[in-house]
Amino acid sequence: MGVTQARIAVDAMGGDYAPDEIVKGAILAREQLGIETILVGDAARIRALVEQYAPGQSFEIEPATDVIAMEDDATVVRRKPQASINVAMNLVKQGRADAVVSAGHSGAVMASALFRLGRIPGIERPAIGALFPTANPNQQVLVLDVGAQVECKPRYLEQFAVMGSVYSQDVLGVESPRVGLINIGEEETKGNEFYYSVHQLLKANSEIRFVGNAEGRDVLSGNFDVIVCDGFVGNVMLKFLESVGSTVLGILKEELPRGKRGKLGATILKRNLKRIKQRMDHAEHGGALLLGVNGICIISHGSAKAPSIVSALRLASEASQHGTIAHLTREIAGMVNSGPNPATTAVAAPAVS
Amino acid sequence: MGVTQARIAVDAMGGDYAPDEIVKGAILAREQLGIETILVGDAARIRALVEQYAPGQSFEIEPATDVIAMEDDATVVRRKPQASINVAMNLVKQGRADAVVSAGHSGAVMASALFRLGRIPGIERPAIGALFPTANPNQQVLVLDVGAQVECKPRYLEQFAVMGSVYSQDVLGVESPRVGLINIGEEETKGNEFYYSVHQLLKANSEIRFVGNAEGRDVLSGNFDVIVCDGFVGNVMLKFLESVGSTVLGILKEELPRGKRGKLGATILKRNLKRIKQRMDHAEHGGALLLGVNGICIISHGSAKAPSIVSALRLASEASQHGTIAHLTREIAGMVNSGPNPATTAVAAPAVS
Repeated sequence: MGVTQARIAVDAMGGDYAPDEIVKGAILAREQLGIETILVGDAARIRALVEQYAPGQSFEIEPATDVIAMEDDATVVRRKPQASINVAMNLVKQGRADAVVSAGHSGAVMASALFRLGRIPGIERPAIGALFPTANPNQQVLVLDVGAQVECKPRYLEQFAVMGSVYSQDVLGVESPRVGLINIGEEETKGNEFYYSVHQLLKANSEIRFVGNAEGRDVLSGNFDVIVCDGFVGNVMLKFLESVGSTVLGILKEELPRGKRGKLGATILKRNLKRIKQRMDHAEHGGALLLGVNGICIISHGSAKAPSIVSALRLASEASQHGTIAHLTREIAGMVNSGPNPATTAVAAPAVS
Repeated sequence: MGVTQARIAVDAMGGDYAPDEIVKGAILAREQLGIETILVGDAARIRALVEQYAPGQSFEIEPATDVIAMEDDATVVRRKPQASINVAMNLVKQGRADAVVSAGHSGAVMASALFRLGRIPGIERPAIGALFPTANPNQQVLVLDVGAQVECKPRYLEQFAVMGSVYSQDVLGVESPRVGLINIGEEETKGNEFYYSVHQLLKANSEIRFVGNAEGRDVLSGNFDVIVCDGFVGNVMLKFLESVGSTVLGILKEELPRGKRGKLGATILKRNLKRIKQRMDHAEHGGALLLGVNGICIISHGSAKAPSIVSALRLASEASQHGTIAHLTREIAGMVNSGPNPATTAVAAPAVS
């Protein structure tokens, strides 16, 4: 914990269960972790919810009269300056808050962050980073990008690698993060032209510890701390992971209680099964990190309920207390100032990633 | 079963456990399914193995004096005409066998098939199709391509869709296969330019039943019978699926027997746990289908042991008894003869998929 307590702006109106579960999450985060929030949105509704769930407590509320709906186009944020996500971003811009948490429309959160906070100098495109569980219960792997950029140039992925390393160090406490590049084989010549170009850039970059290609089977191995990919591949993996988890749990629920022995065994194992479910659900818990914008932004799952909001607030609080943005700005500046990487300039921009 | 029994050429020298487990697999396939094979490879070694595992039985053996090693480059098949995989392909070309099964180097199998059997007219690039399990225990989904083509043009994926549909009908018995396109959202405008172009082609193709985009979370849902993607994305998913399965089994093994209740429960559930493992291992079982070459080829996992070879032989036998190649040739000819699809010609070739 730093000297001053972080204060997190919470988009109380974003998400499938907003504002109820979002406000509940903020209440729990204060109770459990001492995290202070500013609740942004419909002031009367938020006040009523605070009175209902935490009678007698007071929360700072920042009124915002507009809302971005899940089905809205992301560009709507430009036309609704009073949308809760925009007002929350402004709080960070004005220095009144250290980070933003939103379970709203992720495209809109990104658009709002880009428009209100801007990019870190040297970062051409922001990325969304998600934490995947690994075979090691004490380790997660930061996968980016999982959906922000579906048309990438190789150097975007190089920038993702630097951002991922800094976050892994500052937020996850990994001393020297091992960076991997998603690919279909271990050898550097594997994959397509685009990924080959990225491989060359990562190999030549002295700011990161690039350990080589990561095949699909290596993602959860625990052998990597950061895995870089384009947003198309990353998004497919993220959603696939979620579905494999729930498919497997479905198979478990179906198969375990079969027969007399099964019913008995499943009853006995109830508590262990719950722990298994928790470990597999891990991916969603913390929310995703929006990296590359000039401020800490955590994007929670649209279906986030109070416990996920607590996790997102913990992540936001940790990120803001480690001076991550300043660290990132320095690293990127170092990369840019070391002159154009010969590999960077040699790479043609492919049409599609 | 058709009138004439299929005869499958088996590359007895391909795979991590060749020739022992391959020969054992052929013996089991005859015993359990009545499938007849021609064992291709080192005749003396194969004969000795048959005598050891099936004394008194006789198997047709086709001698081949060379072997492609797992670490060889795929192009080596061109310089080794006597390699077991080449000799096996020749048997199909000569009409002496109806299909080939190999657990060897998948790139070499593909190169050998292309060189010896050639492509089906109208197919520009072959694809590898893998069967993924779904939430429904009685349904699999055919995902292609899972690694043959990492630089694709949109029309290759259109051809994959037609091939996948025909295989799904003939081999898996799906009457009207629902074809999906991997993407990061349901709306047709989602994803990158490349996938948008493919979407347009699939929508306009009357030979298939295109039902729309499939997100990562939909792959295992059971809502699709065929899912089309480029070989980079497909390979990442295939290997990711394998690893998620084993990671989850690892978590199960670790968490289930915890504590006294856990040990008791896990013991009681032993049989149910075994069934769960089998359902999750399903993906590997059948082996992958090499689609688009002028003959039935099944590529088994490099680590295949006898039971996986039996499954691959069952798949090969079913595919060869349904006239799949003739069916495919007709479908593709129909597509080509219906004139250039306006969408096809409008699509620029992107550099990278």
